[in-house]
Amino acid sequence: METTEPEANVTRIMLAVNESSIKGYPHASISSRGAFEWTIQKIVRSNTSGFKLLFLHVQAPHEDGFEDMDSIYAFPEDFKTMKHRDQTRGLHLLEYFVTRCHEIGVACEAWIKEGDPKEVICREAKRMQPDLLVVGNRGLGPFQRVIAGTVSEFCVKHAECPVVSIKRRPGETPQDPVDD
Amino acid sequence: METTEPEANVTRIMLAVNESSIKGYPHASISSRGAFEWTIQKIVRSNTSGFKLLFLHVQAPHEDGFEDMDSIYAFPEDFKTMKHRDQTRGLHLLEYFVTRCHEIGVACEAWIKEGDPKEVICREAKRMQPDLLVVGNRGLGPFQRVIAGTVSEFCVKHAECPVVSIKRRPGETPQDPVDD
Repeated sequence: METTEPEANVTRIMLAVNESSIKGYPHASISSRGAFEWTIQKIVRSNTSGFKLLFLHVQAPHEDGFEDMDSIYAFPEDFKTMKHRDQTRGLHLLEYFVTRCHEIGVACEAWIKEGDPKEVICREAKRMQPDLLVVGNRGLGPFQRVIAGTVSEFCVKHAECPVVSIKRRPGETPQDPVDD
Repeated sequence: METTEPEANVTRIMLAVNESSIKGYPHASISSRGAFEWTIQKIVRSNTSGFKLLFLHVQAPHEDGFEDMDSIYAFPEDFKTMKHRDQTRGLHLLEYFVTRCHEIGVACEAWIKEGDPKEVICREAKRMQPDLLVVGNRGLGPFQRVIAGTVSEFCVKHAECPVVSIKRRPGETPQDPVDD
């Protein structure tokens, strides 16, 4: 066992994670899991006491309310329940990563924010000042990128800290590569 | 002392390094040194046996021959001498990084290639398949970037491996920020 290093001296790596577009909550997207595994295998390695992972999950506010089409909203409380349910789903997503860190023995923190993912990730990176921000990337082609938009490209350009974007492995691409 | 891990299992980090535009060879540029220090302090940390650093220095072929204005070229051998002298300068630049790695106790390799730096870095990254490519970055504004061009932006976009671009600290910016 290595001795535990003081917190001020650990390398703080922020990971932006999101839910699977195929399986939905609480499952993490393929690219989030890829970014996490890369960080553990290639950066943290055996030096678990030298790192702290900061997991941020950003939830976009419901724009179309599609998922809630069959629900009936009669009281203000109903909307609170909806918001509460979303946060609970987000927490279960984060639980996966926090549990993995616990098993591996690497310190971590996790939190949820609401808003436009790309904007919020950059804002939170500015606030938390990690040594490195790791974002997953679907590895889309130029045409798909224009259609689907990419959070990772925005973060690489706009985040103030060093950013590394981890492409999904070709073998992990779902039938529709925009899915994740 | 940790036990030495087998080569196949180390994290291979490629660093593109260049000479100082102010002091010239054999001095490394501010951003190259920054990228190296960041890699050692934030990624390698105490886990020196878990990493191998690959230093690539790309020399652009003389376009204007300005540095050789006062030289007289009378025989084909004179040009060979010129080329030889350039390579020697490049080797002294790499010597700085290899010596530092030796002191720290982290394995490394270093080599020189000739060509357009941004193209050659991406080509070499494809050939060597590092786990991470680290490039220094002068942290220029949008206008300066258009004028001066940036190798790091090109690599972030085009290299096939994960890339992290390390900005020069504001306190280290020379009088002319295009210098490095």
